Amino acid sequence: MLPFFQEEFGNPGSIHSKGQSAKNALEKARRSVAEILNCEPEEIIFTSGGSESDNLALNGILKKDDHLIISAIEHPAVLHVAEILEQNGIELTKIPVEKNGILKIEKIEKAIHPNTKLISVMLANNEIGTLQPLREIGKFLQKNHPGILLHTDAVQGGGILDLNVKHLKVDFLSLSAHKFYGPKGVGILFKKKGVKLNPQISGGSQERSLRAGTENVAGIVGCVKALALAEKSRNKEFIRLKKLQNYFVEKVLAEIPKTRLNGDAEKRLPGNANFSFFGIEGESILLRLDFEGIAASTGSACASGSLDPSHVLQALKIPHDWLHGSIRFTLGKSTTKKDLDFVVAKLKKIVKDLRAISPLV
Amino acid sequence: MLPFFQEEFGNPGSIHSKGQSAKNALEKARRSVAEILNCEPEEIIFTSGGSESDNLALNGILKKDDHLIISAIEHPAVLHVAEILEQNGIELTKIPVEKNGILKIEKIEKAIHPNTKLISVMLANNEIGTLQPLREIGKFLQKNHPGILLHTDAVQGGGILDLNVKHLKVDFLSLSAHKFYGPKGVGILFKKKGVKLNPQISGGSQERSLRAGTENVAGIVGCVKALALAEKSRNKEFIRLKKLQNYFVEKVLAEIPKTRLNGDAEKRLPGNANFSFFGIEGESILLRLDFEGIAASTGSACASGSLDPSHVLQALKIPHDWLHGSIRFTLGKSTTKKDLDFVVAKLKKIVKDLRAISPLV
Repeated sequence: MLPFFQEEFGNPGSIHSKGQSAKNALEKARRSVAEILNCEPEEIIFTSGGSESDNLALNGILKKDDHLIISAIEHPAVLHVAEILEQNGIELTKIPVEKNGILKIEKIEKAIHPNTKLISVMLANNEIGTLQPLREIGKFLQKNHPGILLHTDAVQGGGILDLNVKHLKVDFLSLSAHKFYGPKGVGILFKKKGVKLNPQISGGSQERSLRAGTENVAGIVGCVKALALAEKSRNKEFIRLKKLQNYFVEKVLAEIPKTRLNGDAEKRLPGNANFSFFGIEGESILLRLDFEGIAASTGSACASGSLDPSHVLQALKIPHDWLHGSIRFTLGKSTTKKDLDFVVAKLKKIVKDLRAISPLV
Repeated sequence: MLPFFQEEFGNPGSIHSKGQSAKNALEKARRSVAEILNCEPEEIIFTSGGSESDNLALNGILKKDDHLIISAIEHPAVLHVAEILEQNGIELTKIPVEKNGILKIEKIEKAIHPNTKLISVMLANNEIGTLQPLREIGKFLQKNHPGILLHTDAVQGGGILDLNVKHLKVDFLSLSAHKFYGPKGVGILFKKKGVKLNPQISGGSQERSLRAGTENVAGIVGCVKALALAEKSRNKEFIRLKKLQNYFVEKVLAEIPKTRLNGDAEKRLPGNANFSFFGIEGESILLRLDFEGIAASTGSACASGSLDPSHVLQALKIPHDWLHGSIRFTLGKSTTKKDLDFVVAKLKKIVKDLRAISPLV
């Protein structure tokens, strides 16, 4: 990224050679991400992040009286937009998930009617990591409802799941660079060729007039480099994390009583472990963990500031006395077995201490 | 910016200390820009750039049947949004500018009617650099129409003009980091306290729920540092550039026959020199200049790819045989008198050569 903050400072919209050099870097990045997603370079729109990509897909497609189907556990960048669209005359159906956090395709099937324009289902959930049956949904739509568009918020899957849009059979796919160790403030929206989209930010003719604004060249270069690096070791890293995840989950459940894993044990991101600890507050666990140098989360970073349990955990119908004691751990590329042993040891003591002063236990 | 790409990688939305450390950096940046703009930190919204800021101000305010007034030479990020809003039931008035590229306040006065909700006039034009009478407009509105909101696209003025919102008396002000030597992909929108704004990107509760998406911490830190640096030497740099500009403009007009300066000679950005050369094509001049290592522009980078003269130059009623031979030069912090002598020498020869093969001359 560094040269693009310094000597390569051209604006890709400028005709002079400094501009064209920046434009070349931008188009090289576009070809590289297209290769990973197995699509055409002109099907890639660079945005400022996953939220903008999600917003663009929904806002850019739907018109009054269109019907939109989403899962009940979508990221707020889909959920809130859908609710705003509903206020503006779009019909919205939220499909509940099963207790394991996974959506049944039959429920989508039942919700479809002649006005259904778009279905938006996330590839993997940001809080509980559960994987939705995207390929099956894509296959089903292609066979039975080829006119209905399919969007997936694949932000959590970036760099760790297969993002081949031909496998997923999606029309739109959102990504965010910082989820695969790229810079914050850069996102990608795949838009299938031929699908008409209205821009959300209008002005200049950047990104084929689908997203105005001088391109964040350094950020885009960094985003795509990070994705390419992740893609190279994706399968190996998936297996490594899956083993660590199993080790961690089993150890936590075995060593800490009255603990449950939220979301399907198998069909989940290999880096996600979301637990509920009976009778205590997630926030207190988190602050104690932080004191030990362990970074965890209660809900999602995007929903911080709210004391209510997230819509995702609520959708799993977790009993109330468990719900508030929920904590998400994320395993990443630097995580080792030794780290996890350290976390379990600390966590065990913290949960015990907090339960000792809890009125519920 | 560098630490925020590396060790300080926290998400400002996370409660743990890595997150809080990022949040502190973000809020420190917010206080710093608020100081420069003479506003409250909570009146600052960080965006992905000037275009997003402009779009957010217009889209976030206007509802069906509202009346919007803009100048005819606004940046496309205002102009195109205004035209889209017009298609969706907003009444739009475009105020023409005089031949010097400056708008007469009486024409705004005449256009105002009871439904007028927002007036959007740029602080300085991106092609011809002309300065609009923003303070006078602000003063006039405050006195006569305190209910009408005022937005200014101040992108071109960032780091070189006074951005004090109390002086300008604006309710909204847009900035873009790369215009004052900050990184691309970061913008600022000042929104006056108490003015209700609908978000354009919805989802998480970032930026007081007015702009969802994980904050581009490194970019924001860089943006605000660049603005603070520019602010420190702003007056000195203004005077230095103004002298260079006068020298350059006089020399070009004196040494190259049939040349005109577009836009008011005095009331313009000190770094902007936009000329028309009779009978030749701007694109050809630009390519020849580029060959000599001189970066210039025909219109704006945001409108590249179009062969038509820009709406800005057209608004000045420049005769047709001059219009296509228009070139914009931008003087910046590294520009010296020696550079300008070099440009004039090359430009003189290029214009002569091109006129020798022009059917018009």
